Amino acid sequence: MSVTAPLGFRAAGVAAGLKNGGDRDLALVVNDGPSRAAAGVFTRNRVKAAPVLWSQQVLRGGRVRAVVLNSGGANACTGAPGFQDTHATAEQAAEVLDDSAAEIAVCSTGLIGERLPMDRLLPAIGTAAAELSRDGGLAAADAIRTTDTVAKISFRRAQEAGYTIGGMAKGAGMLAPSLATMLCVLTTDADLDAETLDRALRSAVAVTFDRLDTDGCISTNDTVLLLASGAAGVTPDEAEFTALLTEVCADLTRQLLVDAEGATKAITIEVVGAASVSDAVTVGRAIARNNLLKCAIHGEDPNWGRVLGAVGATDAVFEPDQVNVAINGVWVCRNGAVGDDRDKVDLRPRDVTITVDLSAGPESATVWTTDLTAEYVHENSAYST
Amino acid sequence: MSVTAPLGFRAAGVAAGLKNGGDRDLALVVNDGPSRAAAGVFTRNRVKAAPVLWSQQVLRGGRVRAVVLNSGGANACTGAPGFQDTHATAEQAAEVLDDSAAEIAVCSTGLIGERLPMDRLLPAIGTAAAELSRDGGLAAADAIRTTDTVAKISFRRAQEAGYTIGGMAKGAGMLAPSLATMLCVLTTDADLDAETLDRALRSAVAVTFDRLDTDGCISTNDTVLLLASGAAGVTPDEAEFTALLTEVCADLTRQLLVDAEGATKAITIEVVGAASVSDAVTVGRAIARNNLLKCAIHGEDPNWGRVLGAVGATDAVFEPDQVNVAINGVWVCRNGAVGDDRDKVDLRPRDVTITVDLSAGPESATVWTTDLTAEYVHENSAYST
Repeated sequence: MSVTAPLGFRAAGVAAGLKNGGDRDLALVVNDGPSRAAAGVFTRNRVKAAPVLWSQQVLRGGRVRAVVLNSGGANACTGAPGFQDTHATAEQAAEVLDDSAAEIAVCSTGLIGERLPMDRLLPAIGTAAAELSRDGGLAAADAIRTTDTVAKISFRRAQEAGYTIGGMAKGAGMLAPSLATMLCVLTTDADLDAETLDRALRSAVAVTFDRLDTDGCISTNDTVLLLASGAAGVTPDEAEFTALLTEVCADLTRQLLVDAEGATKAITIEVVGAASVSDAVTVGRAIARNNLLKCAIHGEDPNWGRVLGAVGATDAVFEPDQVNVAINGVWVCRNGAVGDDRDKVDLRPRDVTITVDLSAGPESATVWTTDLTAEYVHENSAYST
Repeated sequence: MSVTAPLGFRAAGVAAGLKNGGDRDLALVVNDGPSRAAAGVFTRNRVKAAPVLWSQQVLRGGRVRAVVLNSGGANACTGAPGFQDTHATAEQAAEVLDDSAAEIAVCSTGLIGERLPMDRLLPAIGTAAAELSRDGGLAAADAIRTTDTVAKISFRRAQEAGYTIGGMAKGAGMLAPSLATMLCVLTTDADLDAETLDRALRSAVAVTFDRLDTDGCISTNDTVLLLASGAAGVTPDEAEFTALLTEVCADLTRQLLVDAEGATKAITIEVVGAASVSDAVTVGRAIARNNLLKCAIHGEDPNWGRVLGAVGATDAVFEPDQVNVAINGVWVCRNGAVGDDRDKVDLRPRDVTITVDLSAGPESATVWTTDLTAEYVHENSAYST
């Protein structure tokens, strides 16, 4: 169902020839209205790809008619010619849809530092437009995959209120605090203005995509867009809408987590007893980025010393002799020293939970990451060859 | 020659049975004076091992008679009993040497979260004392190895001024801004007071060990000690001494770099054109910690986009469209976009140099790191088993 689950949206995914092998690599998502209110969040990386610079301009207007997304090339670090390529992409979509380029967002993903083959990309926009349909959500989600092994889609329906939220995402590596090589388009048939969508989106992203940190690398292309058609004719309560949107984002986050490049473990890091949410997130991220710990979890070794080493490198409020650590429910570290028998920890399941109790306050946060594996190294050594 | 190159020092390395396999695992370095001025720098990790807490106290007095070092166990996260173990180690060395425990520094390295087998460690101190000799520097360097494949030793002689600086180090993983699981003992027969030694040591470490960042993980045990015997009877110019000390530290840093766990590349990151040294170091570290780039270098792929992605995640002063990047001398990125042909980059040699020109000022800094390999993952998955 994906982005076409809500009323008012059509989508398509076609093969433009940007990727080797003839797989789908160009997606088009169109909002047929009546509303076209929209919001977006973008990478915090200061080196931003051309489509990010373009789409940030578009979203400033708060209206999006359509999104063109391509895999097979990030169009990042391509200078002024790369920006012109993105502009031409939006113009082409505008022409095909008989609309304004100023309301066409563009997203790209793939290798950095290479121009896109525009001679193949531009004609494919017409092909995609001809294939637009209410059933096109899955094909669109398929077209934005890079090293993703599966298409990531989700939707939730607010039964009583009478509206739907749908979404698709891609991203199997470089997932980091600033969303990292992930592209995501969320759609809804609820009728909400751009400001409300913006608040809801930022709130949802902050506790979902933004808490997924597989390798600490921040992409140049991260984009999450939220488009509202208003086709359901209802204006939901903002808090309820935000909660449902957060559910969709959490579902997509989980799909990104379990499909991360080369990962064999999905690690949930719960930080509790923190003096502030910010402290809890800082500690969670420090653990998520500790290569040594990620290797240990890969080796099914409950090496809590590496957890403490990571915590100790932060400036969060805590006393080293008051920190407790549980791995899969076994409190292997109590008061900063040896706790329960580490042999009781069963690390064979794919899902691993590391709980850190800072004993410093009432706040908490959850961060997700993966293990570090030889397969990760292999995939990222060979990616461009 | 190691720590016994300067006059006034004896050392020994023996097998206490802390490690499996009967290898040397306990080192003793003794300063026979006439001076025993000393300085030390320690991990910035807030979770500090017992020997770090102990040795910080000792160094506050500015005098060290001897250093006991063990591999086979970090004595970190071992609570009050672990601190008592360190204290007992110092007391035992003091008894054997007929000296004060308050002037015995202790260093440990190995697994976190396990008590040391004191029944084996304590008697070995007497064994080591009996073996102390002017030739013992290499045995001592051998005894502090963990996953180090070779002992790391260095010395430099100030021919005209008539003094010598020697040193030994260990550390093959967890090398990070705060020195990371590295232990290092530096010795000199120059006659300098503790304050001068402290300034010289901090200055030397800041541009050597502290710029080596193999995996961003900060150890609980890092310790670098500098002991002066004064036996050469000369008090050198501070600037000249600092320069020579920096040479010894740079030599040891290089040895740590090329022996880092699982690494196949020794990567030098030169950041030039920075607005400040701090900016240059920040950018260098961000690149050194970018797993994706480290995988690319492992795959001999001159993926400069990942360099820019790492730079863009920092808050250093720069404009994305003014950054230049060279890999092994080929300027593959100019003004933030495609530069010279990346096929000209030869990444087959072990030594790789990445040069980043921020075009933002006159300052520069060098940071060293390694590639990320399947062997790194393997070593760190299996370490404790």
